[in-house]
Amino acid sequence: MCPPADQTNGVTKDEMVPIDNSNTPHIPPPTNETNGKSEPPPVKSHKGVYGRASDFLSNTSNWKIIESTLREGEQFANAFFTLEKKIEIAKMLDEFGVEYIELTSPAASPESRAHCEAICKLGLKRTKILTHIRCHMDDARLAVETGVDGVDVVIGTSSFLREHSHGKDMTWITKTAIEVIEFVKSKGIEIRFSSEDSFRSELVDLLSIYRTVDKIGVNRVGVADTVGCADPRQVYDLVRTLRGVVSCDIETHFHNDTGCAIANAYAALEAGATHVDTSVLGIGERNGITPLGGLIARMMVADPEYVKSKYNLSMLREIENCVAEAVEISVPFNNYITGFCAFTHKAGIHAKAILANPSTYEILNPADFGMTRYVSIGHRLTGWNAVRSRVDQLNLNLTDDQVKDATAKIKELADVRTQSMEDVDMILRIYHTGIHSGELKVGQSAVLDKLLDKHMPSRETSPSRANGANGTPAKRPRVEETA
Amino acid sequence: MCPPADQTNGVTKDEMVPIDNSNTPHIPPPTNETNGKSEPPPVKSHKGVYGRASDFLSNTSNWKIIESTLREGEQFANAFFTLEKKIEIAKMLDEFGVEYIELTSPAASPESRAHCEAICKLGLKRTKILTHIRCHMDDARLAVETGVDGVDVVIGTSSFLREHSHGKDMTWITKTAIEVIEFVKSKGIEIRFSSEDSFRSELVDLLSIYRTVDKIGVNRVGVADTVGCADPRQVYDLVRTLRGVVSCDIETHFHNDTGCAIANAYAALEAGATHVDTSVLGIGERNGITPLGGLIARMMVADPEYVKSKYNLSMLREIENCVAEAVEISVPFNNYITGFCAFTHKAGIHAKAILANPSTYEILNPADFGMTRYVSIGHRLTGWNAVRSRVDQLNLNLTDDQVKDATAKIKELADVRTQSMEDVDMILRIYHTGIHSGELKVGQSAVLDKLLDKHMPSRETSPSRANGANGTPAKRPRVEETA
Repeated sequence: MCPPADQTNGVTKDEMVPIDNSNTPHIPPPTNETNGKSEPPPVKSHKGVYGRASDFLSNTSNWKIIESTLREGEQFANAFFTLEKKIEIAKMLDEFGVEYIELTSPAASPESRAHCEAICKLGLKRTKILTHIRCHMDDARLAVETGVDGVDVVIGTSSFLREHSHGKDMTWITKTAIEVIEFVKSKGIEIRFSSEDSFRSELVDLLSIYRTVDKIGVNRVGVADTVGCADPRQVYDLVRTLRGVVSCDIETHFHNDTGCAIANAYAALEAGATHVDTSVLGIGERNGITPLGGLIARMMVADPEYVKSKYNLSMLREIENCVAEAVEISVPFNNYITGFCAFTHKAGIHAKAILANPSTYEILNPADFGMTRYVSIGHRLTGWNAVRSRVDQLNLNLTDDQVKDATAKIKELADVRTQSMEDVDMILRIYHTGIHSGELKVGQSAVLDKLLDKHMPSRETSPSRANGANGTPAKRPRVEETA
Repeated sequence: MCPPADQTNGVTKDEMVPIDNSNTPHIPPPTNETNGKSEPPPVKSHKGVYGRASDFLSNTSNWKIIESTLREGEQFANAFFTLEKKIEIAKMLDEFGVEYIELTSPAASPESRAHCEAICKLGLKRTKILTHIRCHMDDARLAVETGVDGVDVVIGTSSFLREHSHGKDMTWITKTAIEVIEFVKSKGIEIRFSSEDSFRSELVDLLSIYRTVDKIGVNRVGVADTVGCADPRQVYDLVRTLRGVVSCDIETHFHNDTGCAIANAYAALEAGATHVDTSVLGIGERNGITPLGGLIARMMVADPEYVKSKYNLSMLREIENCVAEAVEISVPFNNYITGFCAFTHKAGIHAKAILANPSTYEILNPADFGMTRYVSIGHRLTGWNAVRSRVDQLNLNLTDDQVKDATAKIKELADVRTQSMEDVDMILRIYHTGIHSGELKVGQSAVLDKLLDKHMPSRETSPSRANGANGTPAKRPRVEETA
């Protein structure tokens, strides 16, 4: 079993303030360009300011996920999924709401075949099951007997792969593709035909075979950036061209070697693609493909209502933790949505604005994913507005001038070393007591130092005490990322 | 000090074959569209197949890095840089070859000011030093006294920030900007003026103020996606429009909340931008900005010769390890270029093609970064070509039929649990001895089992022994990511 979803993902919240903005939700911008729509969701609101004219071919509000953790993800260096783990992941993805899951070819090994058959018998509530095979009749015959809802066929069409992988020409590819497609169709299940390494294939060859398979009735054609070389403008151009050639759905698959896997998926949907391949945390060959969570983050900007209506977003963290544990990796510190700092604000001016309206420095609302916003406070870049928020949370009675005065002391101490939340709270309580007992007045820094020395005798204030012999701070915020 | 660059980044190479393709370098594709250029570098070769017409405004072969680990990176939740660490990072970035580093505003705290002054006195060989300030005369006066080569000025121009952050209108912003810019220019150092949250700002307001500051002679204007909402087509449109309005350089800054930070930087350069802000591993507010290594990966596709001529690429891993250690994070498993599996190939068909020509499944050449390619072998998706490669490395004398036969046994065993490299080597040696002693013939699976039982008595073969009680494999490849 997977560990329970851990809200904090292991990060120590030492010097952070959880901010409750429940009374100040994302507010639409005060612009006259929102066209009077009734209460647009805040993450959409920028579209009115700097969007594009509507495009009837764009599918950014109408698209499906083909979740390939159990196929592409099994090609990740560390992956070894037992049947039990595959079943657990398949059930979670079904509950999350992905439209398809894709499984390793039953031709890969007897165990792969047995796993495929077992998952087909689960009776998933919503998710259809695909398997991914080479364009070969032997593989196709095996695949249709497993009980899958559809078969994803792939063959390399680039000159690279035609020369160095299967060694076949386009005539052979076309002939074999037709045979495999007609066989799978005769079994009454879905069929997709994809090229491999599409962005290094001859455009005319590509379009020609796509047109052929579209005419014989495939459900989808697939475009794949197998090596991760494509950029969003190339993707847009190819998919938009293809959209004019075929009438079937268009599936897309992007590797992330050069950092464009999410942006390319988005560009493909803008150009008229209908399906995006993902894997949990993006695991796959090399550094992987479009991550499920990253795609969700991007699509939330395009149409949050569509995404929220289709997917059980609060499960994202649990699914990621489950897969990370299975393949023995840590969730990256900078992971989309669920990374430990995805909703942590630190700079003083950011903190100030976030407190006034979260939309100022957030395009995603953490509450949509069952996450929480944090404002970091005990560091040298802090600002008095963030401290004001903490003072209010502690129910301390201080004026703005007093808060600014206390903030100056926090910054002074934090310049030597980062202050924990516990330290900051203690400083604020001592400051508060000093003010209300009459011992302390605004601006009396030396008096405050004495009060702190008296009530926090163990605190480290001098550089020589705070820093280790090698110049590194003796105490720093710790991140213990969980798998 | 930072730990020495670790080639393996902690991954156990148990079931992987390091592949020496030194005799089969990336080969240009056999296409007639390479226009007869003399020996194009392989990573460029796809451009001839599916590229775009040349564009005289594109700067993908002529751009500069503004490295902001010591400014944006200091706003990362975990960051607390001592002066010693800042100096170490600054020197490494100078040696790597970035054109600029950007430092936290001296107005942020007395320590920030002292750090800025100390770094300016280092006498970096190549890298210019900038500091990043609010659009305010007080900050500007402090900045010009630190010894920096230039000042980056920023102010929020979106309706969100004008309402909830500084509360000023465009007239005030313009007036203040002019005052600050003319003051900094009078000191004879570089000046950049940037809007904040540019993609949620009014286009006409934006262009108006950019035109104004361009006319009074700023070195650069800056476009910033402060909340990470922009997509590459929006970026292309805005930067291309701006390119027609100003004659100065255009700097760009992209947050990564929705996964487009690298693609957006690339789109900006295509549209005519000249400078890209980065940080090491992308650290910054929330989940950060365009990562230095990720940008390098992307630009290597556009023009590898330009990138290799400007930057000391083999230092990338060392710099990332240094910063990761300083802020106490692990390098993400899927990090660009230096992630432990960035050049690991697993599926059988991938392994086969990689052995014939690395360009088939790689757009980046690991050797350019001092990295090594691996082909994973002891798993259920393995193929006989990868095993052939290992047989040859072990100097074993086996025919292709024999290798295929041995591969079938490896797959059979790997279906139960992943086999370590040690296991695979032992199986191959036993197979080899059996064949040459006459004890074993191709196809005699049961005989081979007996030989394995005899010579590898401790091996785990049955599912009940291999798997723990909870269904997870008893032995799996381990990843111990180093900081």
